Amino acid sequence: MMNKNNEPGSDTTMWLYLRRTLVQQYRSQLFKPFVLLCAFASLWLTASAQTWIWYPGDYEIWLSNEMQNRRTERGTFYPVFWKVDSHYPLVDFHKEFNLARPETVTIHAEGQYSIKLDGRAFSGTPAAIEVPAGKHKINIKVFNQATPPVVFVKGQTIVSDSSWQVTFEDKEWIDETGKASDLSATVFKHAGSWNFNDVAARPSAYKLPVTPVAAASAEKVNGALLVDFGKETFGFVKLHGVKGKGTISLYYGESREEALDTAASETFDRINVDMSAAADTINPHSKALRYVHIVTNGNVQLDHASLLYEYAPLQDKGNFRCNDEEVNKIYEVSKYTLHLSTREFFIDGIKRDRWIWSGDAYQSYLMNYYLMNDNETVKRTTYALRGKDPVTGHINTIMDYTFYWFMGVYDYYLYSGDKDFLVQNYGRMKSLMDFVWNRRNKNGLLEGLPGDWIFIDWATGLSKQGEISFEQLLFARGLETMALCAELAGRRQDAEHYKAAAVELKQKLFSIYWSDKAKALVHSRVNGQPTENVTRYANMFAIFFNYFNEQQKQAVKTSVLLNKNVPEITTPYMRFYELEALCALGEQPYVLQEMKNYWGGMLKLGATSFWEEYDPSKKGAEHYAMYGRKYGKSLCHAWGASPLYLLGKYYLGVSPTAPGYEQYEIKPALGGLKWMEGKVPTPAGNIELYCSNKEIKIVAPVGTGKLIITSKTKPVCKEGEVMSKGNNVYELMIGKDRKYTVRYQAM
Amino acid sequence: MMNKNNEPGSDTTMWLYLRRTLVQQYRSQLFKPFVLLCAFASLWLTASAQTWIWYPGDYEIWLSNEMQNRRTERGTFYPVFWKVDSHYPLVDFHKEFNLARPETVTIHAEGQYSIKLDGRAFSGTPAAIEVPAGKHKINIKVFNQATPPVVFVKGQTIVSDSSWQVTFEDKEWIDETGKASDLSATVFKHAGSWNFNDVAARPSAYKLPVTPVAAASAEKVNGALLVDFGKETFGFVKLHGVKGKGTISLYYGESREEALDTAASETFDRINVDMSAAADTINPHSKALRYVHIVTNGNVQLDHASLLYEYAPLQDKGNFRCNDEEVNKIYEVSKYTLHLSTREFFIDGIKRDRWIWSGDAYQSYLMNYYLMNDNETVKRTTYALRGKDPVTGHINTIMDYTFYWFMGVYDYYLYSGDKDFLVQNYGRMKSLMDFVWNRRNKNGLLEGLPGDWIFIDWATGLSKQGEISFEQLLFARGLETMALCAELAGRRQDAEHYKAAAVELKQKLFSIYWSDKAKALVHSRVNGQPTENVTRYANMFAIFFNYFNEQQKQAVKTSVLLNKNVPEITTPYMRFYELEALCALGEQPYVLQEMKNYWGGMLKLGATSFWEEYDPSKKGAEHYAMYGRKYGKSLCHAWGASPLYLLGKYYLGVSPTAPGYEQYEIKPALGGLKWMEGKVPTPAGNIELYCSNKEIKIVAPVGTGKLIITSKTKPVCKEGEVMSKGNNVYELMIGKDRKYTVRYQAM
Repeated sequence: MMNKNNEPGSDTTMWLYLRRTLVQQYRSQLFKPFVLLCAFASLWLTASAQTWIWYPGDYEIWLSNEMQNRRTERGTFYPVFWKVDSHYPLVDFHKEFNLARPETVTIHAEGQYSIKLDGRAFSGTPAAIEVPAGKHKINIKVFNQATPPVVFVKGQTIVSDSSWQVTFEDKEWIDETGKASDLSATVFKHAGSWNFNDVAARPSAYKLPVTPVAAASAEKVNGALLVDFGKETFGFVKLHGVKGKGTISLYYGESREEALDTAASETFDRINVDMSAAADTINPHSKALRYVHIVTNGNVQLDHASLLYEYAPLQDKGNFRCNDEEVNKIYEVSKYTLHLSTREFFIDGIKRDRWIWSGDAYQSYLMNYYLMNDNETVKRTTYALRGKDPVTGHINTIMDYTFYWFMGVYDYYLYSGDKDFLVQNYGRMKSLMDFVWNRRNKNGLLEGLPGDWIFIDWATGLSKQGEISFEQLLFARGLETMALCAELAGRRQDAEHYKAAAVELKQKLFSIYWSDKAKALVHSRVNGQPTENVTRYANMFAIFFNYFNEQQKQAVKTSVLLNKNVPEITTPYMRFYELEALCALGEQPYVLQEMKNYWGGMLKLGATSFWEEYDPSKKGAEHYAMYGRKYGKSLCHAWGASPLYLLGKYYLGVSPTAPGYEQYEIKPALGGLKWMEGKVPTPAGNIELYCSNKEIKIVAPVGTGKLIITSKTKPVCKEGEVMSKGNNVYELMIGKDRKYTVRYQAM
Repeated sequence: MMNKNNEPGSDTTMWLYLRRTLVQQYRSQLFKPFVLLCAFASLWLTASAQTWIWYPGDYEIWLSNEMQNRRTERGTFYPVFWKVDSHYPLVDFHKEFNLARPETVTIHAEGQYSIKLDGRAFSGTPAAIEVPAGKHKINIKVFNQATPPVVFVKGQTIVSDSSWQVTFEDKEWIDETGKASDLSATVFKHAGSWNFNDVAARPSAYKLPVTPVAAASAEKVNGALLVDFGKETFGFVKLHGVKGKGTISLYYGESREEALDTAASETFDRINVDMSAAADTINPHSKALRYVHIVTNGNVQLDHASLLYEYAPLQDKGNFRCNDEEVNKIYEVSKYTLHLSTREFFIDGIKRDRWIWSGDAYQSYLMNYYLMNDNETVKRTTYALRGKDPVTGHINTIMDYTFYWFMGVYDYYLYSGDKDFLVQNYGRMKSLMDFVWNRRNKNGLLEGLPGDWIFIDWATGLSKQGEISFEQLLFARGLETMALCAELAGRRQDAEHYKAAAVELKQKLFSIYWSDKAKALVHSRVNGQPTENVTRYANMFAIFFNYFNEQQKQAVKTSVLLNKNVPEITTPYMRFYELEALCALGEQPYVLQEMKNYWGGMLKLGATSFWEEYDPSKKGAEHYAMYGRKYGKSLCHAWGASPLYLLGKYYLGVSPTAPGYEQYEIKPALGGLKWMEGKVPTPAGNIELYCSNKEIKIVAPVGTGKLIITSKTKPVCKEGEVMSKGNNVYELMIGKDRKYTVRYQAM
């Protein structure tokens, strides 16, 4: 599967290590207990008492359509520009039960429906049915074109949950992975669900919760009211004591400048007023803002304004704290940025698009694993991005974004251990990869076809011509991901095909793009000729994909990553990967300084959330411009929050090496800090860690960990045996639910 | 393309003849004027002043879901058991205009929408926009999950109609036929529309019209009211003078027995009443009935009942009349049967399923071409049956029904000349055939796979095992149809592929199934062995598909069609094809007697519409039973109306031989009648015909016809030159808009 040159060494990245581990486990049949454990974990995660259920992915797609079509731009509806799918209007739900004693079962559905017991239909749609003792099968078939067919079943033991089976056609209960004869794995086809555990919590009526927030300050500017909520926020503006006849215009600003610039602010709302007595009114649209500039027309008065802050009610599980207060502040603002950008789904930013973008979402997933660790938002976002067959374009129309989607599914499995989700979605992975596969050119490489957007990054002068190395690199990773997932889904033939294809593509990648002169992968090949252009993208990804050998890695660090002549990256989006690559090379001290400069730089400019793009060379309100618009830039963009991930994975150093943290690694790296402490979420709870130059304390609620440290002298630990691996590297196995204290001498 | 043995002779069927003609025309470039003519005809048929428009097929699918999910069985919701699709929730409509002077354009949509002029969005959603003089492009983008996105545009010259382009993804305006490089034909991608020409006629609010009908009689039976509407009908029962508190149950009956049998009637409704003053009430569900048995419970009184007859407002264009009053009555009841079964779509029957079944619809199409000739109902039904990609099962789950769908698309083109529809749907044809193609067994033949229903006909003891000759025959015809349509859609490579595949399959068909001993195609091959079982199905279809040579045809007539030892057909569904095969062999006198016996037999039993099945050996209420239920049989079933088609096509003898009747054939056959007269609709109006033993009169508003008659002496016609073809066969070319009178001596 792997090129010999690229065999992982001692600094193996988690991903590659895991891959090897998994395949070994699979081959040695040691994997079975993991599967069982994962299946159990998955049940624990998704099954609950009783809950509204649906065809997997259908509610998610419907809800994402609702959310994404709330975008407006200066008052105009601004929908997405890719194919939008629908739920299946007709769905059958069924399950078999074995009852010790008879029970009364209440049944609700959204839509027109019929109920069958053991194949015989009840007359009408009874609110409750009697199920006798013994083995019985219940079928509920629901039709609903407007909103997804959903059901809610509650008896003493019979309840609707993710163990029900669903289908959109009666004849067969066929696994989504298809009918290929090589399918030896168990067939999964479980209902989708979330947390609608009460019959009154109808899925189609779902709204994010709100909480009232008062303004931080308000002032009169040219006779209008300018209200400041003190920091970036999101919600419905509430106007108090409104009276009279006329209109009220709300100009929103992420900056004071934007709110006051009524001709250029990105978003606004207009409210018609005709009220004889003073009353409060809530604007029906929720918007991103720090400031709102309230301009009245006609004979309208109002008292003051407040906000109904709208949010996804997710609790933080992870944490990070250290001796450097600037870093702590960066971490706190990153948290807030990710929370604001985590709504019904992981979105890009809160002001403008409010859409689900695969490249952006992929980063949110990774940050999420170190903060809220909310599986549901990951799954929902994954379903929404993928949409339905047939595949008629790349995800978000962007070639790179298709590949991030594959990586996201795999990472979700790794962090959550939820194999069921992966297996259920193997069919969707395969048909998306089929789409990509059929678009290869005569060289077996990908280049932009009509309708494809080659994004990579927002960067001026970035060539999108010809066969771009970065896209082939992601394609290779996509094929590797498919090989792994095919194996997990029991599709051995597919796995062999994808493995071979990945090996071949990686060989091409190096033979075409590697330049001994530049000591780097060059950017592209145009008309059969590799260009001399070197960019950071393919080179930094090849580091943490572990595609380079040790020599190449060290060469690229100097020739590309630390080379100021290679065009710099100005988005936190690609800084994420740049800094990850440097961390993977052990450059935590350098990255910490970069983090303080870059994210600290935004804080010094007064940022209360992190931005879509930051160029330290700009001044004042120049910072707010983007896309040729004065306030086009989003000042709260999920990809700005990457310190959450970097600090958790590369400083606290915690990452899973087997699904659901059944195995994991802890490689703390202070990177110049005196001490740090934090929590990293796992499916079973938090791994807690304290680390100074002299002492490391660990407690973990899950699996088997491996603490890897470098120390001048052999570390001391009462709770376990420290093993020397040579070169000042030591290892300690971490068992479940025990407190470890390790004394050592940092290098 | 064709097996030499099967080269059509002088009695070439229309279909084969046409195929040859078309291909010749195509090759000789004579085809172009036809394309232009067809394009013009198509515009004339579909474009109108201004009309609501949508993504083609989407409104049709949505409406069919609404209609099909109205089925109830004894009060229980009874949905279909195959995949149901949705409209695209987000659709972009656009068109470019070149204005001589500025104009104001009003715009309406169902859904949330934005409007762009030359790529620039208007703020909000203005009800009207100003379009300056010159060349401009309007885009309207609509989002609607509940009902299909539709728009209505009206200016002085700018109006919404089928000339607008639509897409469900912005990036490309790609023809549905795909992106293959062999695509040389013009790209079609036109908006769908119907007749919603007024802004107030919102498509999502569409309902069939109703008209009040009084009961024919009423009587008291055991204290309840039994109302008779005098004949089979359909609609909403209206109760007059309802008063009191309690319930009213309406038991519907296609027969008196069914209405009175409250425990077994197929459909009923219950109405809760709580009215202090007498008032009228209309039951919200429309039902099939001749009788309604009204049973009250509690203290409820009512005065009498009437009906709001619900119908599709289609006018008859075709007609048939002859000297035999029984045949005239059969024709009239056939008309009524087809009208009742033609609702929003062509459905199977009005009592029970009220679903769109491809095999049933295919026959309705053919009858329609000789009666109402309504293109819109054909197109709507074709879209609804096909649904959307991906194809996950056969149409209606039935293998045979998939093939009727292909034949239906082609026939529509032939009768209407609407090439646009065919080209626009080539992509849907291809993906459906891909589905079939991928399900061939190792012999390249089709047999039932899990989820497939092999229907053929309702007949006891009919084997569905192994490789059934009838299915291979339909498959071959499907491949031929694809070859023709691929050529019309400009997909030459596809056409070559399908042609070769059809030839190969037809060779297999004869080498495997033809039995010299039985002088027939045998029914099936099981485990590699042809069975000895002979059934009528493959043999009769092979006649009018012209797959047999002349010898085989004559042999099969005796060995199968007129052989009482071969199991008889008991459904009008397959009698349709049996009688068509006999007509194609010139057996009109025999078929006329069969028609009088079979359909006349139902009339003698008091039928006011024709039935799903008729077995003359049964007695009394036995006739109403089917599917193991006392009143399971539908007494108004579209497939019962086939005399409409047989009399039009094989007695009046009129059929198109080029698309849209640009060329056609008239082969009158009195079949024992003294005289007959009638009208056959064409896109340009009716062909009118009178025929006795001595005289034929013709007037036609379209194309070029060929009158083919056999006569003892050379016919005389002042209006044209009669040519002798030998064997007492004579031909006369029929020009447009001239009256022809031909005197001859019938053989």
